[in-house]
Amino acid sequence: MAQGLSQVAPRYLTGDKAGLREFLDKFDVFLFDCDGVLWSGDHLFPGTVETLELLRNNGKQVVFVTNNSTKSRADYRKKLEGLGIPSTVEEIFSSSYSSSIYISRILQLPENKRKVYVIGETGIEQELRSEGVPFIGGTDPAYRRDVTPEDYKKIAAGDESMLDPEVGVVLVGLDFHFNYLKVALAYHYIKRGAIFLATNIDSTLPNSGTLFPGAGSMSAPLIMMLNQEPIALGKPSQAMMDSIEGKFKFDRSRACMVGDRANTDIRFGLEGKLGGTLGVLTGVASKEDFVSGDVRPHAYLDKLSDLLASEES
Amino acid sequence: MAQGLSQVAPRYLTGDKAGLREFLDKFDVFLFDCDGVLWSGDHLFPGTVETLELLRNNGKQVVFVTNNSTKSRADYRKKLEGLGIPSTVEEIFSSSYSSSIYISRILQLPENKRKVYVIGETGIEQELRSEGVPFIGGTDPAYRRDVTPEDYKKIAAGDESMLDPEVGVVLVGLDFHFNYLKVALAYHYIKRGAIFLATNIDSTLPNSGTLFPGAGSMSAPLIMMLNQEPIALGKPSQAMMDSIEGKFKFDRSRACMVGDRANTDIRFGLEGKLGGTLGVLTGVASKEDFVSGDVRPHAYLDKLSDLLASEES
Repeated sequence: MAQGLSQVAPRYLTGDKAGLREFLDKFDVFLFDCDGVLWSGDHLFPGTVETLELLRNNGKQVVFVTNNSTKSRADYRKKLEGLGIPSTVEEIFSSSYSSSIYISRILQLPENKRKVYVIGETGIEQELRSEGVPFIGGTDPAYRRDVTPEDYKKIAAGDESMLDPEVGVVLVGLDFHFNYLKVALAYHYIKRGAIFLATNIDSTLPNSGTLFPGAGSMSAPLIMMLNQEPIALGKPSQAMMDSIEGKFKFDRSRACMVGDRANTDIRFGLEGKLGGTLGVLTGVASKEDFVSGDVRPHAYLDKLSDLLASEES
Repeated sequence: MAQGLSQVAPRYLTGDKAGLREFLDKFDVFLFDCDGVLWSGDHLFPGTVETLELLRNNGKQVVFVTNNSTKSRADYRKKLEGLGIPSTVEEIFSSSYSSSIYISRILQLPENKRKVYVIGETGIEQELRSEGVPFIGGTDPAYRRDVTPEDYKKIAAGDESMLDPEVGVVLVGLDFHFNYLKVALAYHYIKRGAIFLATNIDSTLPNSGTLFPGAGSMSAPLIMMLNQEPIALGKPSQAMMDSIEGKFKFDRSRACMVGDRANTDIRFGLEGKLGGTLGVLTGVASKEDFVSGDVRPHAYLDKLSDLLASEES
């Protein structure tokens, strides 16, 4: 997948005022990965708010792109606000939202197969509801139980009390109440023809300075059982880029993806043929990764707020 | 992995009395896969009991080999008895037992790293207990709960109330109470140096005539998160064959594996360099699979009880 991606050495822009101005002038739209770029965990990086303000004051469109599927856009806006970052729901693009858009506007589901069986939390449910997509599963407590001997028989028989015949899509996101029954049902829906979607396939989720199971870990048993990969709607899947473009109607050559991970954020921008990609060293990737890795950004900074130097006198 | 396995056309022995006698005479030990060979689900195949009796009467050692990790050998013997098959605990080799043997007799664990963190059911616990291996997790209800914000912090900090410092092995088997917390703990134990073992890696489990998540589905999230495969102790892993040989001290050239699946049972016997492998058509594999597949048995039968014809007048 890394074939054909940027192999030129990235430009180091920290402290290079002229270079920063030139870089910023090339773009109208900045897509931001959030954790590791704007903040880390609950800690807002100094200068984040001022940098976003600088961009907006210069007429740039700012978009916050997150693979977090547990939150809706409204939830995520609250999170940004809690961290002190002004934003609007319209500036936020989460994998729960891109999944909902993909289901409601791109998939052409037959009339009697419009229901989505959800493995995931409330963020997905809110976004499906906002797009008018019917769903089952998700946070419904009826699915938070042990599997019973009766369940096996009913599932095997295709009993409609267990397997809703109108389900045409299985959407798998991060689910903290993941269990045997949920996986068994998802497997049988897909075997019966439902489309296998994942909000994103990040295997891990950063929390408290370490890693925990991510949304990809919820898809992993199904991938193994079915020997089939899901269509993923988060970064670096281009299905997410298509959704963002569909909404913002921007010129890709005038857009720049900003991120801290080479293999998701920077890849996402490069494969999406955006005019620019900008790496920052406040998250996962090291300078080494950006300079000599397989996936290299067009430019990189020590930290996002180094952009402020473009306007300092 | 299929390289070098039997590529000769298998001999079809149903109705071939002389061929059957010649085949049986070659072996002292018969290793049996169970479901699909002796029975299917709860249905005992006609002639199973008589066929086992014929083998025993002719002085053959019979061993029942099962990847089922939820049952101990004692549980499994009860299952055989319930189906009307006489057997002893000593004739049974389950993946829960081979895992326990592997941990207690083959792994050389440091004094302060002898504990096993178990994802699985009571069969594993019983076999670990019988080998004197200390363990945590498993069916302990304390692990059947949601993850809390406190858990993340404690796990990240390596708090001993969450992560027992004496755990040196993570053993993953089929667990009907699989959840987010259990996967998170297993991940952190392995990241801290614990050995990653799986009772078996069958992705699915047959039940009620269809498939449900198997033990491999419990390992799948960990494999994805860690980018590391477990050491598997069930068929077709040769770790299981080594355990069986260690216990029964048989001559491999005088042993025959009987099974219904080319890729697990027959592969298990071929890779273990047993003198013979015998396929039966009462389970997963078709005649086509055995005759022209990648992994071919030495001989095959329509059904196991066709062996009875070797003694008919």
